[in-house]
Amino acid sequence: MTGTLSQKPLGVALIGTGFMGKCHAMAWNNVATVFGGARPRLELLCDADPDAAARLAPQWGFARATSDWREVMADPRVDVVSITVPNGLHYPMAMAALAAGKHIWLEKPMALTLQDARAMAEMAAAHPQQVTILGYNYLRSPAVQAIRALVDAGALGQLHTFRGVYDEDYAADPDLPWSWRHTLQGGGLGALGDLGCHLVSLMVALMGPVAGLSARTHIAIAERPSPEGMKAVENEDSAMAVLRFASGAQGSFATSRVARGRKCHLSFEIHGSLGALRFDQEHMNEFWLHRQGEAGFVRHLTGPEQPDFAAFCPAPGHNFGFNEQKVIEARDLVACIGGASACGPDFAQGLVIEEIIHAMARSNGTWRDIQEARSLS
Amino acid sequence: MTGTLSQKPLGVALIGTGFMGKCHAMAWNNVATVFGGARPRLELLCDADPDAAARLAPQWGFARATSDWREVMADPRVDVVSITVPNGLHYPMAMAALAAGKHIWLEKPMALTLQDARAMAEMAAAHPQQVTILGYNYLRSPAVQAIRALVDAGALGQLHTFRGVYDEDYAADPDLPWSWRHTLQGGGLGALGDLGCHLVSLMVALMGPVAGLSARTHIAIAERPSPEGMKAVENEDSAMAVLRFASGAQGSFATSRVARGRKCHLSFEIHGSLGALRFDQEHMNEFWLHRQGEAGFVRHLTGPEQPDFAAFCPAPGHNFGFNEQKVIEARDLVACIGGASACGPDFAQGLVIEEIIHAMARSNGTWRDIQEARSLS
Amino acid sequence: MTGTLSQKPLGVALIGTGFMGKCHAMAWNNVATVFGGARPRLELLCDADPDAAARLAPQWGFARATSDWREVMADPRVDVVSITVPNGLHYPMAMAALAAGKHIWLEKPMALTLQDARAMAEMAAAHPQQVTILGYNYLRSPAVQAIRALVDAGALGQLHTFRGVYDEDYAADPDLPWSWRHTLQGGGLGALGDLGCHLVSLMVALMGPVAGLSARTHIAIAERPSPEGMKAVENEDSAMAVLRFASGAQGSFATSRVARGRKCHLSFEIHGSLGALRFDQEHMNEFWLHRQGEAGFVRHLTGPEQPDFAAFCPAPGHNFGFNEQKVIEARDLVACIGGASACGPDFAQGLVIEEIIHAMARSNGTWRDIQEARSLS
Amino acid sequence: MTGTLSQKPLGVALIGTGFMGKCHAMAWNNVATVFGGARPRLELLCDADPDAAARLAPQWGFARATSDWREVMADPRVDVVSITVPNGLHYPMAMAALAAGKHIWLEKPMALTLQDARAMAEMAAAHPQQVTILGYNYLRSPAVQAIRALVDAGALGQLHTFRGVYDEDYAADPDLPWSWRHTLQGGGLGALGDLGCHLVSLMVALMGPVAGLSARTHIAIAERPSPEGMKAVENEDSAMAVLRFASGAQGSFATSRVARGRKCHLSFEIHGSLGALRFDQEHMNEFWLHRQGEAGFVRHLTGPEQPDFAAFCPAPGHNFGFNEQKVIEARDLVACIGGASACGPDFAQGLVIEEIIHAMARSNGTWRDIQEARSLS
Repeated sequence: MTGTLSQKPLGVALIGTGFMGKCHAMAWNNVATVFGGARPRLELLCDADPDAAARLAPQWGFARATSDWREVMADPRVDVVSITVPNGLHYPMAMAALAAGKHIWLEKPMALTLQDARAMAEMAAAHPQQVTILGYNYLRSPAVQAIRALVDAGALGQLHTFRGVYDEDYAADPDLPWSWRHTLQGGGLGALGDLGCHLVSLMVALMGPVAGLSARTHIAIAERPSPEGMKAVENEDSAMAVLRFASGAQGSFATSRVARGRKCHLSFEIHGSLGALRFDQEHMNEFWLHRQGEAGFVRHLTGPEQPDFAAFCPAPGHNFGFNEQKVIEARDLVACIGGASACGPDFAQGLVIEEIIHAMARSNGTWRDIQEARSLS
Repeated sequence: MTGTLSQKPLGVALIGTGFMGKCHAMAWNNVATVFGGARPRLELLCDADPDAAARLAPQWGFARATSDWREVMADPRVDVVSITVPNGLHYPMAMAALAAGKHIWLEKPMALTLQDARAMAEMAAAHPQQVTILGYNYLRSPAVQAIRALVDAGALGQLHTFRGVYDEDYAADPDLPWSWRHTLQGGGLGALGDLGCHLVSLMVALMGPVAGLSARTHIAIAERPSPEGMKAVENEDSAMAVLRFASGAQGSFATSRVARGRKCHLSFEIHGSLGALRFDQEHMNEFWLHRQGEAGFVRHLTGPEQPDFAAFCPAPGHNFGFNEQKVIEARDLVACIGGASACGPDFAQGLVIEEIIHAMARSNGTWRDIQEARSLS
Repeated sequence: MTGTLSQKPLGVALIGTGFMGKCHAMAWNNVATVFGGARPRLELLCDADPDAAARLAPQWGFARATSDWREVMADPRVDVVSITVPNGLHYPMAMAALAAGKHIWLEKPMALTLQDARAMAEMAAAHPQQVTILGYNYLRSPAVQAIRALVDAGALGQLHTFRGVYDEDYAADPDLPWSWRHTLQGGGLGALGDLGCHLVSLMVALMGPVAGLSARTHIAIAERPSPEGMKAVENEDSAMAVLRFASGAQGSFATSRVARGRKCHLSFEIHGSLGALRFDQEHMNEFWLHRQGEAGFVRHLTGPEQPDFAAFCPAPGHNFGFNEQKVIEARDLVACIGGASACGPDFAQGLVIEEIIHAMARSNGTWRDIQEARSLS
Repeated sequence: MTGTLSQKPLGVALIGTGFMGKCHAMAWNNVATVFGGARPRLELLCDADPDAAARLAPQWGFARATSDWREVMADPRVDVVSITVPNGLHYPMAMAALAAGKHIWLEKPMALTLQDARAMAEMAAAHPQQVTILGYNYLRSPAVQAIRALVDAGALGQLHTFRGVYDEDYAADPDLPWSWRHTLQGGGLGALGDLGCHLVSLMVALMGPVAGLSARTHIAIAERPSPEGMKAVENEDSAMAVLRFASGAQGSFATSRVARGRKCHLSFEIHGSLGALRFDQEHMNEFWLHRQGEAGFVRHLTGPEQPDFAAFCPAPGHNFGFNEQKVIEARDLVACIGGASACGPDFAQGLVIEEIIHAMARSNGTWRDIQEARSLS
């Protein structure tokens, strides 16, 4: 990502104060500390719970608080909106923000359904002056940026194989209670929507467009306890796929929310004619590269020679953190608003990711061609 | 494996003096040193090259040498034949050995074609007094035996997911010359026949029978140099599959002979309701187990508490070697001849493995049910 | 660390805008975002270079800029001063800040000489209402806090052995030019002052006071190039020691600035009667614990069950970063100013660390008793 | 090691049938299978227990059995004697074997006392036609041989730092009963004699002669249970040292038999002006090398390009085992008897190792110069 940071301070609103809300708040507070440029004005913090909004706004450095998200859209001091709310609210908020002329930083997945995602992409296309960016933060780490640069520069030669896995264990416990998240209506896709979409974002960024796939999904824990007794889980606990890319390369893909012992095992391997490379987000500060003629895999530890690391720290091996990915994401958004060309995935590219995970969800072991074949910038 | 070691010395012949031939020779020399019982009589060493046979027989402890494999079958002092020759010779030698009343230790894969494998399994079934065993040596290591025991004892609860990869890089160099091994006629399957069958042997042993699969194969290096110019590679460089097991569990599977930097990356993960486990043959002296309530994965280093290790060494952490797997294989064969019940994979079980890899080779992304659904003992 | 966060906003000045200066700035911007409490007022940014100060103050959120550090001390709006300047300036600035009634957050090492450190500790003792804290940030990571809690709770039983290493490679290149940092007068101690003191801070926190030691230092690269030709290196490239703790346990210690390939290899092992534990800062998001009865070492990945992690992120395995250690350090300082009891190492405890590294520097292989035997809170 | 394998079959006797006895037996059975040359004649197996000797001789391939070790020395068919008995018997058996004209393969440590070791070295010097070799098997693995070749070829530049640790946990349990092994009279040194001597063998082979050291020993578990009540442990549970080599390089050294969770953690690092290298015997099939200009450490997995591996297996990554080290040791002994120049450590070199561990045992934190400064071949 290259570009110029906006010199005019942006007015920022943040909707949602959960995991991702706080993460956006930390990023907005330090994007200028780290990267320079004008410090954003933190105008408005919004949460459905008015007490939370009022209590957190001064701690997080926001000037005002509200519990009405429509107030955010109406506020002329707000240039850009961070949306970090439950997935079912992505569609109405994003549509309203676009209609209101705001730039949008939206958490993934884009929407509950493929139709909603398509409508959002169309709406964004109709507002080309407004920047949209989706929270695929794992694309931002210095290690992943370095990997992309290596791959793009041909360090691995012609790519022929991708192997990707994203496993966590947050739903591995059969005693985890049933919730609306386990329904297709309320939660949408399961592991694919929550985890798999991140892996797709990396896969497409590295390998280019997907041409087709055959996949299977699986519900490992069929029923979960609720106050009204056991209830059925409707969306998948795990999914697996074999894929063909437009380039002719092949890939395997797997994701699970019931993988005991895995906490953030977002991992991939790429094999090319001249080398191979592997990465695991649980060790996000290193990747392993092997090139023809080398004895084996070489550990590449994150350091200032990797993109964006030096802005945070000049010393190699001094670990970059998960939350700092979000500072880079904020920087990319700010730069894009300031005229930089590429900061994706925007809504158009996000739709590509949605097409792929929904094709996996529907495949049931049969081959499906992917129509929305597109790369990520 | 339990059983009694034969007290009557077995007469042994070994055909082939390459990689696996020498490995069998080391095993035959030390099976009694390690496990006790009567030392086998090493009667006859056979190699198509009469000089090699004559030179190596005294070094390897064999009483006599020959270059005619039919002489082996005719020799009444020979009770058991190790067959470690190019895959195309497996069928005629195994058929002749069975006809001659010999027990057989045959290297994998069973045969070039599924038809040949079926004929061999039928012939073996017609000779139930003769023991057959295939060289799926990775089933024998103390770590894999310990893993099987844990899984069978329910340490992981109900299994729902298998993830397996077997990658090597021996064909990654595009300058590797073309040979008959790259043809369907001469070499049979590619990565599936050479590497994938090993992974299938572990998968079926751990997860039980395969019910169906969807797979794709890929030729990464389409042509290779020969003295007559570039020639086409006919068999697959890699394969990937998604699978369903008869138990209802799901699995992913991948194998490649063009995976730069991988030397013996035969690896798998198993996820169950109560835990997860992972193994990589490049670190064959450890596996990683996580069980509900534990903080993370625990390293289990090979030691005398794992099956068969103590016979080689009483001290934990003193690494078990690849060749020693073959000593256990020899012990299992000897025990089976002596009446022990289980020493698989025999020819019947080997056929199951062949059915699976041939189904993968033919799938092309469509779902295929597996008929020969059978577990491995 | 427990305590209450100050409800009255603190006025903050920061002196120095290098590596550590920026790190303090990021921490001051987010300490309230992460931990709540009143957001500090960022009053004054000071750098000897007036352009840097003026340019960075608005980016980093400071209200005003100055190039005169004495102005900081005179400013009544400043309650607390971050001092992140070259080591030779620590003494005069800290003495002036204490005289001016400021709280101090001082980077390590405390001072160039043991005498200066003693004077600073005495001055701090004479101003007991002012909080001092030294930048031993590695004590703050969730993993290290969790390790301290485990050790203090007796998870390892009686401790008998410490093994510590802190290696980096920043001076490994013989072509690295000579500078005043390589002189005793200008730079003070070498690897011991730069790296070793961090390892001592961890060692004493975990093992309690040091009773005596025998050490050797080594200059691996005797001369370095300068514009005037090759010049002698006066301070140590590496040091090694054996130690006895007041508890009767024993320890080994090593540090190097010329260890090729090491970037932030601050690592230790502790062995006790009931278990053992190991940690490496290059993998700061995990430690390895083995307890009696377990098969091997268990990986403990950083997550919300470790101290302070949840304030940054609710999701386990989502890596904590180096810079975030500094946010915890800021929180501890703020809490201590607000009346919390323990936030060390303060100047008194810092002096203990200085006593130990200077004893190592002077030992030359002979045994030296340590007088200032004291634990770290 | 280069040399010619004896063409005349050697007559072999083996004394002792425990851990190391069986290991020697496996090696004698396969040294010619692996390396060619004349198969040794396995003449005589000796064990103090006549039943064990009689039972194991046929299983291990020995022609005859005895319970009288003096019979071994008197047997003219015996050319070489493997001595694998309790340490207290090393001295009388080795002296008798030398007097009887036998070549000797003796397990470590050489002797209970330094005096005995000196007498044995003198006796060996008086019998220069007879080959002696000590069982420092860790010098033989392909990885360690490759490391020695790299270091000797200057791959790391000028060596300045050694860091060595050999930890196990076999005595970590306080309930382990007291035995004569815990006395100075019966057991000699503790961790230094059992483990530390192996680490010294590697250290001296890699770094050259030791010039001086300062060390401390420690008894972590002061008393152990016996049928007569608690009894004092007299020899050290652990030892730590700092060292200076004759080359001017420095080193640290630690060993423990009470290190919970460690099974065979014989590990070291070497730092030089151009690179660094690390190894851990628990992963004996890999080492990690970093050289100037490389991004980080590179994994070197054992394979046929490493010394002696190809004789066991042509395929890289197919793990070499602990017991196979002993086959190489046997090959070296046979080659040396056949006239090859170097197969150390012989008794003269073994004495150097003894001098160092006894100096560590006596140092008590004071500096001690080492007189017997000598390299290992």
